Amino acid sequence: MSKAVARKLDEFIARHLPTAQHMQLAVADYDSRSLTLTAPLGPSINDKLTAFGGSIYVVAVMACWGMVYLRCVEQGLDPDIVVAKGEIDYMKPVDGDIVASSLPTDEADWTQFFEDFAERGRAKIALSSEVRIGDAVAARFSGLYAIVGVKA
Amino acid sequence: MSKAVARKLDEFIARHLPTAQHMQLAVADYDSRSLTLTAPLGPSINDKLTAFGGSIYVVAVMACWGMVYLRCVEQGLDPDIVVAKGEIDYMKPVDGDIVASSLPTDEADWTQFFEDFAERGRAKIALSSEVRIGDAVAARFSGLYAIVGVKA
Repeated sequence: MSKAVARKLDEFIARHLPTAQHMQLAVADYDSRSLTLTAPLGPSINDKLTAFGGSIYVVAVMACWGMVYLRCVEQGLDPDIVVAKGEIDYMKPVDGDIVASSLPTDEADWTQFFEDFAERGRAKIALSSEVRIGDAVAARFSGLYAIVGVKA
Repeated sequence: MSKAVARKLDEFIARHLPTAQHMQLAVADYDSRSLTLTAPLGPSINDKLTAFGGSIYVVAVMACWGMVYLRCVEQGLDPDIVVAKGEIDYMKPVDGDIVASSLPTDEADWTQFFEDFAERGRAKIALSSEVRIGDAVAARFSGLYAIVGVKA
C-alpha cells in the first residue's frame, strides 16, 4: 500500500504536466524506498500496437523524478527538481500497461543529497528505474537529478 | 523547404502516435540529410513553465526515428523501426517551442544500413539530434535505431 504522501505526485502531474496527464500517468505504489508509476497502453500506443518508446521513457524518467519529489515532500521541501541526464535501454516491447519502478538506492545517498541541499542550495542524485512486463525487464533507465533552487 | 515526402511523417504521427499527436509534434524541415521537428511549449509545459524533460526527449528521439522512417519511405520501404537505446543530456531549460534536428550522418552509414536490411531483413543505425534555443544547444540526444521486420 502506498504512503498517503504519494497522492501529492498525482496532484503535481494533474496540475503541472499536461503531457504526463494525457498519458494518464499515475502512482501505483510508494514506500520511501521505491516509487512505481503506471500508464495505460491506450494513449501511448504506437504503430506496432505496443508502447511508444517516448512514453516508456516518460514513465521511467518520472519514476525517478517522482522519487526525488516525494522524498523532498517528506522533508517539508518544495524545490525545483530537474533531470540533467537520462539513458534508456529498450529490451522488449511493452504490450500492456507501462509500469516503471525506481530502484532503491543507499539511504546514505539520500542523506548526502539533503545535506548538500541544506549547505549549498543545490544537490544531485543518480537514480535508476526498470520497466517490467510480468517478470521480465522491458527497459532499464538511469538518470541524474538535481535540485536547482527553491520555489519563489 | 521540406521535401514533399516529409508529410508522410506528419500522417504517421496523426495515425499511430497519440502521445506525440497530443504534443502537436510536427515536421518543420526535411532534406534527406536532416529532419527538424517542433512541438509547442503549451502541451509540454512543466512546473517551472519550461518544457518537460520527457517531452524534450520525445521530440529528440523522434527527430532521429523520423529520419530513419523518411529514408525508408524514400526507398519505397515500410518496415517496423524501433529505438533500441536513447541517451540525452539536458543543458539549458527550453522556454519556447521544442525544436530538435537530427544531425547528418555519413551517406556510407545509410548505404550500409539499407544493404544490411536487404541482405538480412534487419539493420541498425546510430543517430544523434540536438534541441536548440536560438543559437544555443539546450539538449543533446543520441540513439540506436533498428529495423526489426517488415509490415505484415
